[in-house]
Amino acid sequence: MSSTAAQSPSPAIALAVDLGGTKVEAALVSDQGVVLPGTRHRQPTGPLRSAEELQAAVDQVVTATLATLPADARLVGVGVGAAGPVDEEHGLVSPLNMPVWRGWPLRDNIASLVPEGIPVTLRMDGLAITLAEHWVGAAQGSDHVMGMIVSTGVGGGLILHGRTVSGPTGNAGHIGHVECGGFDDPCACGGTGCLEAVASGPKTVAWAQRQGFAGSTGEELSAAYAAGDEIAVAAVRRSGRALGQAIAAATSLVDLEVVAIGGGFSHVTPDLFEYAREAVAERVEFGFVTKVRIVPTGLSQDGPLIGAAALVHRADVLR
Amino acid sequence: MSSTAAQSPSPAIALAVDLGGTKVEAALVSDQGVVLPGTRHRQPTGPLRSAEELQAAVDQVVTATLATLPADARLVGVGVGAAGPVDEEHGLVSPLNMPVWRGWPLRDNIASLVPEGIPVTLRMDGLAITLAEHWVGAAQGSDHVMGMIVSTGVGGGLILHGRTVSGPTGNAGHIGHVECGGFDDPCACGGTGCLEAVASGPKTVAWAQRQGFAGSTGEELSAAYAAGDEIAVAAVRRSGRALGQAIAAATSLVDLEVVAIGGGFSHVTPDLFEYAREAVAERVEFGFVTKVRIVPTGLSQDGPLIGAAALVHRADVLR
Repeated sequence: MSSTAAQSPSPAIALAVDLGGTKVEAALVSDQGVVLPGTRHRQPTGPLRSAEELQAAVDQVVTATLATLPADARLVGVGVGAAGPVDEEHGLVSPLNMPVWRGWPLRDNIASLVPEGIPVTLRMDGLAITLAEHWVGAAQGSDHVMGMIVSTGVGGGLILHGRTVSGPTGNAGHIGHVECGGFDDPCACGGTGCLEAVASGPKTVAWAQRQGFAGSTGEELSAAYAAGDEIAVAAVRRSGRALGQAIAAATSLVDLEVVAIGGGFSHVTPDLFEYAREAVAERVEFGFVTKVRIVPTGLSQDGPLIGAAALVHRADVLR
Repeated sequence: MSSTAAQSPSPAIALAVDLGGTKVEAALVSDQGVVLPGTRHRQPTGPLRSAEELQAAVDQVVTATLATLPADARLVGVGVGAAGPVDEEHGLVSPLNMPVWRGWPLRDNIASLVPEGIPVTLRMDGLAITLAEHWVGAAQGSDHVMGMIVSTGVGGGLILHGRTVSGPTGNAGHIGHVECGGFDDPCACGGTGCLEAVASGPKTVAWAQRQGFAGSTGEELSAAYAAGDEIAVAAVRRSGRALGQAIAAATSLVDLEVVAIGGGFSHVTPDLFEYAREAVAERVEFGFVTKVRIVPTGLSQDGPLIGAAALVHRADVLR
């Protein structure tokens, strides 16, 4: 963990920005991975806003958060975790569910709001969250990690050999678009049987509805599962197995040690993890696959902001 | 490319060892990636031999090759590419189709045959071949590469951000055990719809046979395809699409630029590559996936030996 507290009286602070499909948040985060109280600001985003309205929402949260910087603190950088795809080299974002932003220069726009010379680092949100799990979450101590979010969509990021993997474009970590054998659910990306098309919260609920489930939310599915509803159990089991299959495939390819899973739908029931582990355990011939540990996120609700801050405070892990 | 020729009158030579399911080969390889004429030796391996017989075969090819070292040459290291799984840290091999070798100390056994102080580097054969494609093959100039072998099995290796990825155990690169959506072929590893279970040479032939194909080899399937046989076309298309689906999944996860494919069954017809590219192209929403180039290997039949030598001559790319 980087810490300059011993060398300097002024604590090193990162301005963290998390751009998601429904909201943009910003906050100040210490080099111990703690969101400073009273510094968090939030604005809605979503597909209905114009490009300029979206940027205005970002400007508002960044500017308001910057104004909360304590007088004795030192802003050392801005970290931005953004819904993908991204163009890492040029700092552009093209979030799937903000179609008015295609190749939008988010990094430079944010840089214009902060003092000159403050570096702005932009990465996919899945990579940011993975850095956070590695830094202060469930993947501490491992150099071969996948962080995952299972929510409205399914995303993730990779740390291999102790360093982040973002690829030439910055889009490595799209575990939601790894396919699951035996599943032929059509995916919005154009693929077949992609994990996201099977196991996201909405897709799991939709599958249950097609079997006769009367509810319409992940919360209702969770309650039905807890009550032993057969359809809810089948739906959660199906999605859990798909999760495990995609994790087994990813482990076959990059030899993971630990997969840390967060996101709203990951809390549907702890059994979701058991179904995933069952599917991984079927790879009986490959000890290097079955060794992978699948664990719940070690982060609070602040995970995405801590991840964005890790782009600054854990720049040593970035590549 | 590393070269010490300018500094030294004695050319730097690697002793390359390729351990496969049916044979073990060794040869001397220059720092330009050229197998020295007259230095290659081969012995059969296979599942019917005892552990000691297998080691004796290795000893024979290593010792015979070492004896061909030119008087003016300098042996700088031994590179061993081995069928997986491996235990990279301890230099152990457990090749799936040599069941008498489980956790066999191949690296140290080979080290005992060469002069003290000569380093012996052991990696999975798929990683070695990927290094070779990156060094002198079809992936030169790219830092985000997957090498693949499509043959009796389907294997591979990864170079990401310009460095090899082997993972904590050395088994990264098992692209044959990435799953394909919509395929439910059972895999020997315990998985469902794994690429190897669909698209290896023998599995493709077996599928064709189940549709009525009268032949029994990849060569016969190739001839039938060239003659326009409907079953052969359907079989090759099916395997080509599975290849493309697994490559799309891998690119979603690690953001590849180029995939170089060799191995006997990759030559069944150039159309195999077209079917793979078609499947990748269906990921219409993800330019970072559809950008991946799928190309035939740029290596000769010497590829595996050049790859093993690359473990020595391109140690700068290793991690």
